[in-house]
Amino acid sequence: MRLGIYGYGNLGRGVECAVLQNPDMELVRVFTRRSPAGVKTLTGVPVASADDVKMYRNDIDVMIVCGGSATDLPVMTPMLAEHFNVVDSFDNHSHIPDHFAAVRDAANAGGHLALISAGWDPGMFSLARLYASCILPEGKDYTFWGRGVSQGHSDAVRRIDGVLDARQYTIPVESAIERVRNGEQPELTVREKHTREVYVVAKDSADRARIEREIKGMPAYFADYDTTVFFITAEEMKRDHSELPHGGFVIRSGVTGLNREHRHVIEYSLKLDSNPEFTSSAIVAFARAIGRMAARGETGARTVFDIAPADLSPLSREELRAHML
Amino acid sequence: MRLGIYGYGNLGRGVECAVLQNPDMELVRVFTRRSPAGVKTLTGVPVASADDVKMYRNDIDVMIVCGGSATDLPVMTPMLAEHFNVVDSFDNHSHIPDHFAAVRDAANAGGHLALISAGWDPGMFSLARLYASCILPEGKDYTFWGRGVSQGHSDAVRRIDGVLDARQYTIPVESAIERVRNGEQPELTVREKHTREVYVVAKDSADRARIEREIKGMPAYFADYDTTVFFITAEEMKRDHSELPHGGFVIRSGVTGLNREHRHVIEYSLKLDSNPEFTSSAIVAFARAIGRMAARGETGARTVFDIAPADLSPLSREELRAHML
Repeated sequence: MRLGIYGYGNLGRGVECAVLQNPDMELVRVFTRRSPAGVKTLTGVPVASADDVKMYRNDIDVMIVCGGSATDLPVMTPMLAEHFNVVDSFDNHSHIPDHFAAVRDAANAGGHLALISAGWDPGMFSLARLYASCILPEGKDYTFWGRGVSQGHSDAVRRIDGVLDARQYTIPVESAIERVRNGEQPELTVREKHTREVYVVAKDSADRARIEREIKGMPAYFADYDTTVFFITAEEMKRDHSELPHGGFVIRSGVTGLNREHRHVIEYSLKLDSNPEFTSSAIVAFARAIGRMAARGETGARTVFDIAPADLSPLSREELRAHML
Repeated sequence: MRLGIYGYGNLGRGVECAVLQNPDMELVRVFTRRSPAGVKTLTGVPVASADDVKMYRNDIDVMIVCGGSATDLPVMTPMLAEHFNVVDSFDNHSHIPDHFAAVRDAANAGGHLALISAGWDPGMFSLARLYASCILPEGKDYTFWGRGVSQGHSDAVRRIDGVLDARQYTIPVESAIERVRNGEQPELTVREKHTREVYVVAKDSADRARIEREIKGMPAYFADYDTTVFFITAEEMKRDHSELPHGGFVIRSGVTGLNREHRHVIEYSLKLDSNPEFTSSAIVAFARAIGRMAARGETGARTVFDIAPADLSPLSREELRAHML
């Protein structure tokens, strides 16, 4: 299966590495909006200009669209879906229906197949929620994120006057997780589920007390959370906070029995050293499914909910039944 | 969707209760090999003789086959698949390919659709292994079971001379789980992964030391494990050991990155008050999918690997995308 990468940042590099672990796949080309001559890939895969992408329509079975969900993917994925089978990792949950419709229409117009929102949330966490809610209809589910770096929250802090750099960690509250694991089905406020830690490199001249107040009072991002702010040096930032770990927990507890007398807890959790590389690895598995389904003549748009798990695997269905069931 | 239950033991009663939680489903009839007049269902669903099952072929959309994997299901599921869409929970892992072939041939002959091996292992644990191995191809996975009652091991102890009743608990070794969770990828022997506890009610006249020796030395069942034997009274057995809890953990750790420098751990775990009721709840969700797929004209045999998750849910694909992705 021949893949292309459209957009070469953290996610694109993650896809490039993930392809190396999948011998049935080959990375044909990376497309960039920058000058191709200035982009050097990790594995020597050739680089072409994003402007020329349509020239490669016969060379690529599935295009992985690697861009931001705010402004890149709403434009890029429909544009590419008209000419390629595509997979993206659109993660703006509230805009998924609109994005799906736009991608579906473009894919149908071009006779291609598209999958949106691959990754882990949306993605594997969505699957965990879906399976668990179908098995335990009388129950309640909880998603906890972290410990991990939130790029959006880090960016928000960087926009504060006097801040040179910032890194924000989302941290699940262990005692809340324990209550959910015990099947209590508690009602939890935002504050009771997660805390936040912010590491800030400030200008020497900056008023640190003012920066800390601005962070902690920021609506939507921090005001509803218990937030701790640490001021550190640029060296400490580079040494201790250059990785992008993340993870989290999806837990559903529910009851069965004639009198609801039996409790059950289903938990799915991830502990990730590198958020972009894990997301990329999931994307590549779903790209395999999309390539196969397209080869079977399917067109239009799909999500992870529509993919039969066997299509993700390099093994045949016979092998899966014999060795993995 | 109209369901039937073929075989009315713990699993059949679990299915009966699970249907109550799924308003889009209706339980039409229970079939028993005993005298129907002597079987009273929990919810008053009418009972018919297994001998008459074919008379109901137009009244039932999906038949749930509830029997043992050793001798019941290899006969019952193919027999029924010729006349009904069926779901079973065949759990004899090494015989799955043979069972699949027999069920597939019968279902194809009758123009029906069948799903084998629904439940949690095989079933949800198989799905956890499959998804995780596709996302992290360079990794290793581990399945731990328990703490829970193993019926097969309990039965084996009951066959020892002088034993009136027995209950066997499989217990995962917490320190082994922790090593796997930390991404160590250890090589673990059978003994290092699980311990066993056996509760025995012995005849007054029985030689307890001999019973304990026979249990601990039993090949395949106990000889490779650290086993602890407790002798208890019949009253204690009834009071403390009449439930059938179970559960376990599927954990995969793997690496990503150009130099395999990032570690990731994916964990799926279950904590179940009632093994048969949870298994039944999973079966009912997969029965929904089989009913829908059969209505779309699909025939033959499937496993959980072949089912698009959206087909398990009572919600539409639009609703799932909007609220669960």
